[in-house]
Amino acid sequence: MTTDSIRNTAQDTGRRELLALLVQAVGAAHVLTDPDVTEQYRRDMQPLVGAGRPLAVVRPACTSEVAAVIAACTRHGVPVVPRGAGSGMTGAANAQDGAVTILTSRMTAILTIDAAAGYAVVQPGVITLDLIRAAEAAGMFYAPDPTSSDWCTIGGNLANGSGGPHGSKYGVTADAVLALEVVLASGRVLATGRHTLKGVTGYDLNRLFVGSEGTLGFITQATLRLTRRRPALTTAVAAFASVEEAGRAVTDFIATGQSLALLEIMDQSCFAAVETHLGSRLLDEGGTPAAVLFAQSDSGTRAELAAFEDAARANGAILSFQTDDPAEGEMIMGYWRGLEAALEPLGTWILHEVTVPRDRLAALILSAADIAAETGVFVGVHGHAQDGTVHPMIVYRPDAESASERAGQAYRLILQAALDLGGPVTGEHGIGRMKTEYLADALGEVGLEVHRAIKAALDPGGTFNPGSMFSFGPEERRTS
Amino acid sequence: MTTDSIRNTAQDTGRRELLALLVQAVGAAHVLTDPDVTEQYRRDMQPLVGAGRPLAVVRPACTSEVAAVIAACTRHGVPVVPRGAGSGMTGAANAQDGAVTILTSRMTAILTIDAAAGYAVVQPGVITLDLIRAAEAAGMFYAPDPTSSDWCTIGGNLANGSGGPHGSKYGVTADAVLALEVVLASGRVLATGRHTLKGVTGYDLNRLFVGSEGTLGFITQATLRLTRRRPALTTAVAAFASVEEAGRAVTDFIATGQSLALLEIMDQSCFAAVETHLGSRLLDEGGTPAAVLFAQSDSGTRAELAAFEDAARANGAILSFQTDDPAEGEMIMGYWRGLEAALEPLGTWILHEVTVPRDRLAALILSAADIAAETGVFVGVHGHAQDGTVHPMIVYRPDAESASERAGQAYRLILQAALDLGGPVTGEHGIGRMKTEYLADALGEVGLEVHRAIKAALDPGGTFNPGSMFSFGPEERRTS
Repeated sequence: MTTDSIRNTAQDTGRRELLALLVQAVGAAHVLTDPDVTEQYRRDMQPLVGAGRPLAVVRPACTSEVAAVIAACTRHGVPVVPRGAGSGMTGAANAQDGAVTILTSRMTAILTIDAAAGYAVVQPGVITLDLIRAAEAAGMFYAPDPTSSDWCTIGGNLANGSGGPHGSKYGVTADAVLALEVVLASGRVLATGRHTLKGVTGYDLNRLFVGSEGTLGFITQATLRLTRRRPALTTAVAAFASVEEAGRAVTDFIATGQSLALLEIMDQSCFAAVETHLGSRLLDEGGTPAAVLFAQSDSGTRAELAAFEDAARANGAILSFQTDDPAEGEMIMGYWRGLEAALEPLGTWILHEVTVPRDRLAALILSAADIAAETGVFVGVHGHAQDGTVHPMIVYRPDAESASERAGQAYRLILQAALDLGGPVTGEHGIGRMKTEYLADALGEVGLEVHRAIKAALDPGGTFNPGSMFSFGPEERRTS
Repeated sequence: MTTDSIRNTAQDTGRRELLALLVQAVGAAHVLTDPDVTEQYRRDMQPLVGAGRPLAVVRPACTSEVAAVIAACTRHGVPVVPRGAGSGMTGAANAQDGAVTILTSRMTAILTIDAAAGYAVVQPGVITLDLIRAAEAAGMFYAPDPTSSDWCTIGGNLANGSGGPHGSKYGVTADAVLALEVVLASGRVLATGRHTLKGVTGYDLNRLFVGSEGTLGFITQATLRLTRRRPALTTAVAAFASVEEAGRAVTDFIATGQSLALLEIMDQSCFAAVETHLGSRLLDEGGTPAAVLFAQSDSGTRAELAAFEDAARANGAILSFQTDDPAEGEMIMGYWRGLEAALEPLGTWILHEVTVPRDRLAALILSAADIAAETGVFVGVHGHAQDGTVHPMIVYRPDAESASERAGQAYRLILQAALDLGGPVTGEHGIGRMKTEYLADALGEVGLEVHRAIKAALDPGGTFNPGSMFSFGPEERRTS
């Protein structure tokens, strides 16, 4: 036998031993190894990055099963990839060659909704919208609402530090976290946080795990803050003949100090697609507006929408309309909600995310239009105007010549435009495998060293998601 | 020469070398070694814990001076203690034997107030009230307001994760942090965070340093979120014949979903002291109420104070009064603000801090009264009713028999009562040297190990504040 074949045989033996341990931990029915079956868990929603072939995909049912799986993987030097719904846009949950992907699909219990104390206790596989609805049924409100709320999971929201339209008024996922239960690389279980509103007992470990993209531990339970259900929504829409006017209306509104429950912007490219899809036009004449603002208030007062309407009119809005009628409100918000369905027929889409200072929205939208012209792919921008996080949608025909390369070029140019405008590398989607180089640049040498030191302190063997976020060491421990 | 005397000589040489480096770094005028001078920097406001004798107290003027001081201390194996105003209540900034205390008193610049972008950039020695006023002058609002705002520093607020009355509506210090500059044990300078509202670029290092009580790094600059200046305040007061009724009024108000800018509770012991001090009574007859609630709204609407008044009346308030008149509002809030001055003549006071679930306020206040009777010291409770963080004031005559022991006993019994009611070890004051054992209990074995691993990753030599928060290792590296 050659050295190579001895090594291969030893690896095979190790793999067989590990698979036996996984079966022991979660049962044979929940250790998936058939490539036809595991295929569906290889990728998230980001078409521009690669994905490996996992050794196995496992479905633990509880914390102790997660702990047994992770302890076995660490002992065998096999990495794990935590995975929620796969709704991410960065490849952070993509399979890695020879690694074990751990699903949360059997950990979907809402364990507690305590309205008086103002929190919910949930398992990580709970769909975000299920928690929102369960909270509503108890007279409460769970604020963080990623666009994919109807299928993304709380575990994924926590791992990525997700935002959403409500973020600027009510806080993002990170702001809702009171306590976590986390399985560490050793398989030991860590409890972080507290159940009261305030608490500074030791280092803020909640925030260290939230947004760490599965590179430090596996979150098996979360205690999340709920607030009281809000009054009925009032809705407004304003349309503009230029992006600059819409941008100034946002800036002027923010300067009033009022805060809307939701303030979304949509550019002409997106809005035209929606109008075509719905077969209805917002304006009776004058064509598709250059930009549209959608606003919703939940304060029960007139002050916010009045300030919004003032800002819109002062900046030349060609339409400004508000309503208390729920049906009319739904009709308006239908334009906003129709975007993904409207883009579907146009080709493969990439939901990009960039964040800019809130007074630079118009500049970013205009740059995106230039980049669309330059790269020859569709780019339409929509997003959260109150916090400067926007989602350029890049759409391309995968069968067109060099389409994927041009889409990738558009992605990078838009990100660079946002960085040039003073934005961070990511506002609410995370790094994953899409923005790794940008992260290294943004952190700088000292920041990267601190990240590596923390990673080494909590996951010295590099068990957790080693291909994602940043490389573990100067010589990365594993490649995939 | 004996081994001991050789070691002592080597230590003396090392100390002389270090002092020379400190002088080189900050100038001789800013390296204080005279015990008569350094005495004033030995303690914070907590009389119940000890303080050591520092090797030196140094006053750097800028980040590079801080870096030079810390790098020199790390090379010589001498710990550093970061110190702001010394307004803390946990001993976290107390001097340690042979360590170097680093003051922020020469780093007091407000570098930027950017109203349009919504942030301020400050050095750590800025007095909190100075930032609040500078923000106001620019039409903006800096929300975090520890009770000691008129003399505590931003650096201390950051180190301790401080709260304040505005915390429940507007967030605590940690919530305001967008970016930090931190000097690490090596003397290298780390930049964390971003300048936009949202950002998830890498691990949340802002939150790791905030609340770490100077055990991980020295914060030399902070970018802090500002919001727009609020409308004028309206003020209300409600008085109750029983603590239980006041507690239920709070719970009922919270259940409406409204949020006041400020909702403070004060018990009979505190309020009687204030009435005596001011020489005026709140109620024309019936004596001092069992509990008083102070409320302020800044929403510009009637809804919040109306809900507050409803909750007060529904729970038998013997007085319920509200006013838009600033002078009347000031008169009411004068009772609230008068507390520390009112307690001053009664003896030495300890401003305790405990946090309980918001519906357990009354239970905590009643326990505190029992503990006062049991220990024979004065205990009066006041605090932030909307978030469950309250400040039992323990007052004792230091010359009375075993007074300090009885005060310490009251401190521990009150903390235990809060823990029994489901509270965390600390809500907004931190651990310091007062709650170290409680922290270890609360974190548990795994939590403590994670804390030690993070500490070792960022400060492997144990330079930063080793006597505070938790012991660095199973065998603590240094004692003081």
